[in-house]
Amino acid sequence: MDKDRVYLDKSEIPKQWYNIMADMPKLPAPPISPITGKPVAPEELLAIFPPALLEQEMTDKRWIDIPDEVREIISLWRPSPLIRARRLEKALGTPAKIYYKHEGVSPAGSHKTNTAVAQAYYNKEAGIKRLTTETGAGQWGSALSFSCAQFGMECRVYMVKVSYFQKPYRKAFMKMFGAEIFPSPSELTNAGREALKRNPDMPGSLGLAISEAVEEAAGRSDTNYALGSVLNHVCLHQTVIGLETQKQFAKIGAYPDMIFASCGGGSNFAGIAFPFVLDKINGKKVTAVAVEPASCPTLTKGIYTYDYGDVAKLTPIMQMYTLGHDFEPPAIHSGGLRYHGESPLVSALYNQGLITAQSVPQLEVFSSALMFAKEEGIVPAPESSHAIAATIKEALKCKESGEAKTLLFCLSGHGHFDMMSYEAFTDGKLEDYAYPEAAIAESLKNLPEVK
Amino acid sequence: MDKDRVYLDKSEIPKQWYNIMADMPKLPAPPISPITGKPVAPEELLAIFPPALLEQEMTDKRWIDIPDEVREIISLWRPSPLIRARRLEKALGTPAKIYYKHEGVSPAGSHKTNTAVAQAYYNKEAGIKRLTTETGAGQWGSALSFSCAQFGMECRVYMVKVSYFQKPYRKAFMKMFGAEIFPSPSELTNAGREALKRNPDMPGSLGLAISEAVEEAAGRSDTNYALGSVLNHVCLHQTVIGLETQKQFAKIGAYPDMIFASCGGGSNFAGIAFPFVLDKINGKKVTAVAVEPASCPTLTKGIYTYDYGDVAKLTPIMQMYTLGHDFEPPAIHSGGLRYHGESPLVSALYNQGLITAQSVPQLEVFSSALMFAKEEGIVPAPESSHAIAATIKEALKCKESGEAKTLLFCLSGHGHFDMMSYEAFTDGKLEDYAYPEAAIAESLKNLPEVK
Repeated sequence: MDKDRVYLDKSEIPKQWYNIMADMPKLPAPPISPITGKPVAPEELLAIFPPALLEQEMTDKRWIDIPDEVREIISLWRPSPLIRARRLEKALGTPAKIYYKHEGVSPAGSHKTNTAVAQAYYNKEAGIKRLTTETGAGQWGSALSFSCAQFGMECRVYMVKVSYFQKPYRKAFMKMFGAEIFPSPSELTNAGREALKRNPDMPGSLGLAISEAVEEAAGRSDTNYALGSVLNHVCLHQTVIGLETQKQFAKIGAYPDMIFASCGGGSNFAGIAFPFVLDKINGKKVTAVAVEPASCPTLTKGIYTYDYGDVAKLTPIMQMYTLGHDFEPPAIHSGGLRYHGESPLVSALYNQGLITAQSVPQLEVFSSALMFAKEEGIVPAPESSHAIAATIKEALKCKESGEAKTLLFCLSGHGHFDMMSYEAFTDGKLEDYAYPEAAIAESLKNLPEVK
Repeated sequence: MDKDRVYLDKSEIPKQWYNIMADMPKLPAPPISPITGKPVAPEELLAIFPPALLEQEMTDKRWIDIPDEVREIISLWRPSPLIRARRLEKALGTPAKIYYKHEGVSPAGSHKTNTAVAQAYYNKEAGIKRLTTETGAGQWGSALSFSCAQFGMECRVYMVKVSYFQKPYRKAFMKMFGAEIFPSPSELTNAGREALKRNPDMPGSLGLAISEAVEEAAGRSDTNYALGSVLNHVCLHQTVIGLETQKQFAKIGAYPDMIFASCGGGSNFAGIAFPFVLDKINGKKVTAVAVEPASCPTLTKGIYTYDYGDVAKLTPIMQMYTLGHDFEPPAIHSGGLRYHGESPLVSALYNQGLITAQSVPQLEVFSSALMFAKEEGIVPAPESSHAIAATIKEALKCKESGEAKTLLFCLSGHGHFDMMSYEAFTDGKLEDYAYPEAAIAESLKNLPEVK
């Protein structure tokens, strides 16, 4: 067996997802309805989500069966490989052992496809014909487009306007799988029209694109909404990543001391980390590190409170770390991490001291990505490269201390659709944004009141 | 063992390349010098190639050792997986078994990296500090950029001008690995300047870009030239593909009846097919099919004669199938297959009836690609999709006849850098070019005279 490139058989794809709500010392407070100011009744959400996903959102069952149809589709790329980055270790001169779980092998090129397939499946089962969603960098929109195509469903994607024009390849990818793509803000929704009235040149934001997609889904009975991160059921579906990784480490008789994963809305981090957090709850020594951009530092600089998930205040109010729902993050080239909030589950675990967090500035992210690409032969997504940067930093600490720690990071996606960002970096056109302290302080003034 | 996704261990990467010159019934005639009109003396080529590659170009030794340094680098992605396309089979309703060898997993996203690493290695060994090359679609330039970075060598790429502007992601990829890229025709060489004088808006061609790269390499002692296809040593390095595939089929107790590979200069076809052609020579029943674009049908419509490899007539005159060195193929979205000539080895095998050929029109290529992407979850390169189209056609024949043939194709690369071509297709903007009969007839009038 090749211990540096650990494959599993299709039969070893997990048969169940792991639900960390069964094991957390304290659950996040229930989401609050933006209309009634009281905990959201499941019926309110049935306008945009199918019953099976709502149940997953709230259940405390530890293990949830993965439907066979979902396992069959994800078996196109799962189990994904666990790879030892020998050449990176050598280039760093570190005694640390560096492993990465390669989620970039999925059809849409990132971990997002894991939950996209599941969400399309449950919506199809519920008789839904059409899904709406938002996308920033395009990973999530790509994943949902692919997944809808598998079930013969229509897919409409509101793509943050600045990304729509910066990332034509992502748009083309989604069209290839039959999706309709609109730049957000659009003229198709009230939220979009109002934003355009305020500022016709508004570049868009994830929060606003969510508002548009939710508004459309809420208004049509054949249409539901799908979210690519933040929510509990999304984190749940991503746990296949960590569960496979545990099997792979067991095969080679190793176990990670530290786990690094980039963290925007939180689903990538949840996916690789939650199964290991269970180990930690059960007494194992392992540190999971959520890595976020220095210019959008939700966990490391935000506050733990209640906030909306979107700009137009259409979503439930959630207990989470937030920078304020109207905070507009600087235009860093990691669109997938430009989100003001954070998964309530990841937030609660962080608040309870079960996980840690770090932030990394943009230029360090890109120089780490280039090093990884040269040594390991894979161009990583800028989002994933946050985890690479943090891993490299830790590996260099090991070099100082002489510790041979086992480090794991999640390579959540490839960067083939991010080449213009890489060119901006090699051309010296990228910058490190100053920590947007004033903008965050300002937006934190507008948090909703919750009794 | 998973019989639908066949992995090999790193230790199973072939230790030797297979040289078909040891086994061909009749070798191609030796290349003719464009200056003397006589067979090229090795010394003439030493200005642009290192001795080790020249030796490989001419040797009749059957097995050539792969240097450890080369094996170590290609082990980043090799052995590449052999995958059964179960969902494609099902969608086609065919009794045929369809397998594909996935070369898109390489750092530059195509099979080209196999020879790029080897060529960079031998040049480095010979004290060369700098390589020049041409690239059309960008796969070869990307592969050589990555490979030069591995050995700390400089890399200068002349990129066909129309591709330079159509494929900014490819350019960015090459820059990421430190290469210099110039649109061809450029002002840097005589060949480029003369072409620009004739037509300042000339969109460029592979043949002209070759002229530029060769001219620069010939004029500098620290610089050599590297070619991504056509030549014998390039075909040799690609045989790792077929050799691995044979091991993989042996593991699952199967063997292909037919092998499909796209064919431009010929190295991809050579890579997967040559080891199986040896089987055929030894009496096994297997049909290897070179698949080319209907608008650049070198094998299926060209003639077997002597011709230059480039527009400026700087390269040796080779015995091969050709459409004439000044034939400018229609602007199909498969830049890697827009070449007037053909590997002399592939040409000789075709002429001797040991392999067959087919051509496919552009729209069929793209619709086959979309079907494959949806069913198998991988966006293929348009070049590779020629093989997919031919495989699908054969699978549908099997559906008619009820034969359960085993079909193999080489997925020579992914299409992540070709998304604008896919968008042109989904937007209905691509066309099937008429067979360019008149242009070919015209250019075949300008063949060199060889005594």
